[in-house]
Amino acid sequence: MPSHDDQGAQPGGRGRLSIVGIGPGGLDQMTGRAREVIAAAECVIGNGTYLDQVAPLLGGKEVIRSSMGKEVDRARRAVELACSGRVAVVSGGDPGIYGMASIVLEVLEHSGLAIPVEVVPGVTAATAAASRLGSPLSGDFAVISLSDLLTPWEEIERRLELAFRMQVPVVLYNPRSRGRKDHLAVALSLAGRHLPSETPVGFVKDAFRPGEQAVITTLGKAGERIGEVDMHATVIIGGRGSRIWRRGEEAQGIITPRGYERKYLY
Amino acid sequence: MPSHDDQGAQPGGRGRLSIVGIGPGGLDQMTGRAREVIAAAECVIGNGTYLDQVAPLLGGKEVIRSSMGKEVDRARRAVELACSGRVAVVSGGDPGIYGMASIVLEVLEHSGLAIPVEVVPGVTAATAAASRLGSPLSGDFAVISLSDLLTPWEEIERRLELAFRMQVPVVLYNPRSRGRKDHLAVALSLAGRHLPSETPVGFVKDAFRPGEQAVITTLGKAGERIGEVDMHATVIIGGRGSRIWRRGEEAQGIITPRGYERKYLY
Repeated sequence: MPSHDDQGAQPGGRGRLSIVGIGPGGLDQMTGRAREVIAAAECVIGNGTYLDQVAPLLGGKEVIRSSMGKEVDRARRAVELACSGRVAVVSGGDPGIYGMASIVLEVLEHSGLAIPVEVVPGVTAATAAASRLGSPLSGDFAVISLSDLLTPWEEIERRLELAFRMQVPVVLYNPRSRGRKDHLAVALSLAGRHLPSETPVGFVKDAFRPGEQAVITTLGKAGERIGEVDMHATVIIGGRGSRIWRRGEEAQGIITPRGYERKYLY
Repeated sequence: MPSHDDQGAQPGGRGRLSIVGIGPGGLDQMTGRAREVIAAAECVIGNGTYLDQVAPLLGGKEVIRSSMGKEVDRARRAVELACSGRVAVVSGGDPGIYGMASIVLEVLEHSGLAIPVEVVPGVTAATAAASRLGSPLSGDFAVISLSDLLTPWEEIERRLELAFRMQVPVVLYNPRSRGRKDHLAVALSLAGRHLPSETPVGFVKDAFRPGEQAVITTLGKAGERIGEVDMHATVIIGGRGSRIWRRGEEAQGIITPRGYERKYLY
């Protein structure tokens, strides 16, 4: 991948293409590089939700709004425009995790064009949600999307089964949506075959956005609260060893120990 | 978890504890919030490598350097000092992924103290490395550390086996180290039982740091290049469907398609 110091693979060309992770919500969760690349862009393309998230940064730029479901068109348009100008495709969270990086690079690959391209990492939903729950991941973990738009449900179930057998925390993206309401229930049920019912489960909705909500429950009780999970949530199912940190009766967070207790007393 | 708007759980108390992800390397890979929290801190504690990474931000602060292997002491010191002042524990990448969040929160939990605490997410090595390789993750993936300091090797192998059976990309942290030189070879060999030899493998050393290097190879050939991997590297083994994007003979990156090709022609 060309570094972001490359200046135009096309002789005299000023086109460049950036695929920018804008983080989970507030502008303060963006990296300096993400802000710098958007500031330098002449044209910014993205899904409306993500353009709105960075609206204060878009003054004076050509802004192209694209809908959910139009990712291939969005990628094509971006590559086309990047032949002759500085284009930034904005992607929520990190662009390489259920974001725009893969489709934009596939379109670029198919085009055969030598446009300098940069993927700008951002804070992804897994780590954003984890930070609002304490330290539910800590070590090894798996990430699975429950959306079957692009992956068959049988394959998702197969992966879930193996992930829960790993006994490590599992982060679920796209946990619920119209028409896919029961996928989360099935996932929790699969988890329950491999992990104790006291295993902590966290839901974080709208992390770092207005209306943020974090729910801490257990595998045994998560079914009662499943209605509180929507498409804007990230679900983290703990692994063996994960526990709820309480002060008195109140849950403070989820901690998955890394194993220092095997070596030290504290 | 208290939000970062909470003002002192102890009546009149000014202590607060932040566990801050400082990202993979350059200061421009830090979030605005991470910079803000460090700027507000009176005392910053961390491993020397990470304090050096944010050295320009530490002027006028009490800085406490702590070594590798002293994480429990570091956490205890941080909690103690946070009783009466603003303390930031710096953690490379994201603090909730092989970072300081879990041990600091465990020490806080054991102390029973009601100190406001905030975990500040950052760009973790998995996404930093992925961004330098193109889009090797894209969808579902697993993250496993090959360090057996805190987890027995037999358990690591068990998890690797299940992860490779998931057939999704797998990110390996701490791939090699003095005394653990053969863990990566074993991991690659395990992968080879479940994935074709053409499966792309990427190594990124010192992502976003001076001397950054990215190597793109395949499962079948990775053994020849294993000497190029050290403790500063992140290894990404592709999943089924991952491929190398080439322009002519030159590898441009690794792309793991998300599945748009099942629905669209492009």
